[in-house]
Amino acid sequence: MRETFWTDDPRDLLRVRDGFVLATSPTNARPGFDRGKKHGAYALSEGSAVLRELQERLFAAGTVGTRRQVLLVLQAMDTAGKGGIVTHVIRAVDPNGVHYVAFKKPNEVELAHDFLWRVAKQVPAAGELGVFDRSHYEDVLIARVRELVPPKEIERRYDAINRFELGLVDSGTVIVKVMLHISKDEQKKRLTRRLDREDKHWKYNPADVDERLHWDEYQDAFQRVFEKTSTDWAPWYVIPADHKWYARLAVQHLLIEALDGLDLGWPEVGYDIEAEKARLAAS
Amino acid sequence: MRETFWTDDPRDLLRVRDGFVLATSPTNARPGFDRGKKHGAYALSEGSAVLRELQERLFAAGTVGTRRQVLLVLQAMDTAGKGGIVTHVIRAVDPNGVHYVAFKKPNEVELAHDFLWRVAKQVPAAGELGVFDRSHYEDVLIARVRELVPPKEIERRYDAINRFELGLVDSGTVIVKVMLHISKDEQKKRLTRRLDREDKHWKYNPADVDERLHWDEYQDAFQRVFEKTSTDWAPWYVIPADHKWYARLAVQHLLIEALDGLDLGWPEVGYDIEAEKARLAAS
Repeated sequence: MRETFWTDDPRDLLRVRDGFVLATSPTNARPGFDRGKKHGAYALSEGSAVLRELQERLFAAGTVGTRRQVLLVLQAMDTAGKGGIVTHVIRAVDPNGVHYVAFKKPNEVELAHDFLWRVAKQVPAAGELGVFDRSHYEDVLIARVRELVPPKEIERRYDAINRFELGLVDSGTVIVKVMLHISKDEQKKRLTRRLDREDKHWKYNPADVDERLHWDEYQDAFQRVFEKTSTDWAPWYVIPADHKWYARLAVQHLLIEALDGLDLGWPEVGYDIEAEKARLAAS
Repeated sequence: MRETFWTDDPRDLLRVRDGFVLATSPTNARPGFDRGKKHGAYALSEGSAVLRELQERLFAAGTVGTRRQVLLVLQAMDTAGKGGIVTHVIRAVDPNGVHYVAFKKPNEVELAHDFLWRVAKQVPAAGELGVFDRSHYEDVLIARVRELVPPKEIERRYDAINRFELGLVDSGTVIVKVMLHISKDEQKKRLTRRLDREDKHWKYNPADVDERLHWDEYQDAFQRVFEKTSTDWAPWYVIPADHKWYARLAVQHLLIEALDGLDLGWPEVGYDIEAEKARLAAS
């Protein structure tokens, strides 16, 4: 591992494997990290420097046409901390190399196409770190719970997703799929806080409680997602997220490992260094 | 001013007014800031907190349909530090509310349209902070120096730009146009550094020296841009950028003032707070 602070590799501890059960998976644990929140801040800062350098190598490789890219897929119940991942983990790296997409409710044009149509347009280009804040998984989560499409179409989508992701992996993308896992009580606390503070009222949406009333169905839908789409080429990681700081560290680590695994050096120089030095000196 | 560290408002000191001459405008000064680099780091951090809160208000207003948006336009000679502005100033704010666009060489489809076509598609939506890393001004800078279009078309574009920007302002956008101003010597130093370090070689492009050989013509083209397009509704600011840290502080300040000038409170709540508290408590 590139960072110094893990006691065990969170990749091993958090990966969804056969027999995984979301219902008994902890939301307030900190697998692989035995220190507290304060130490977590130092750790995040250490990891940021590592992530930044690795991402720069990815971006540099992209500039010479190397088709390698990383795609982070973030899914979670409301308030679980997707936004914080972006703000605290992703912003450590050069925004030039980040392709961030927040998928909202599909519009009419998008609904007139297959559910993957709008997603395929947003996959990261060579050298990019793509970040999907929600994703094609909404089409088997809310779509299943709210019965937006027939059950048969939901079933079709799992396979379609697996094929789609295999295509991305085949063309050089490393996919990191993350579910931030919070407890129902923790969500209540966080939603309540929004109602308690005037400067957070705008973040509160009554529709969030509507979805909350379907909590168990969403957990079932996630469980089904893991069973159907945690593949060898694109496994899921379920990250305990009651401690926001831990969840950020864990996602940071998954990204570091994804990038480190690409084993990218600096690209070969496509010009004559000495000649350019001379030309520059004379300019 | 919202920040504590300025001795004078950089908006007044850096704004392009009638009679402005780029050629005699300093590149290594620090107008309005009389401390050094170390203090500049504290100042940037103070300003980041201010900027973050103001941007959150803008974003919040956008969620209830208030059509206010801010657009930062960044132009500069190569190596002047546009990237650093994005990394050090913009990343303080919630990326959800940032619409960042790096305009590259136009492609064939874009060239088949008017030069503003691809730009108009990228203007910020309600609540967004748009960041143009290069912009429609390339179409009167490189296009003029490299004679990519006839002189008459360049002349037409200045007026077209002014009308386009007036339209944006009329529909609720505050435009902050910034030129980062470095000396020719400073650029040589920075390009040389790229050739000296293996991990920076990928950032060096021989074409950068090709453009550098046209330095004076670019300065003339900028001068012309300021004369033709520094309008009451969208003035230019020329920021001395030999000290990168100063340039970042100054851009941060311009954004803070732009946002502060919108005088946005938190949006009115569109639901019954007590009723939602009860509903949430029961959930």
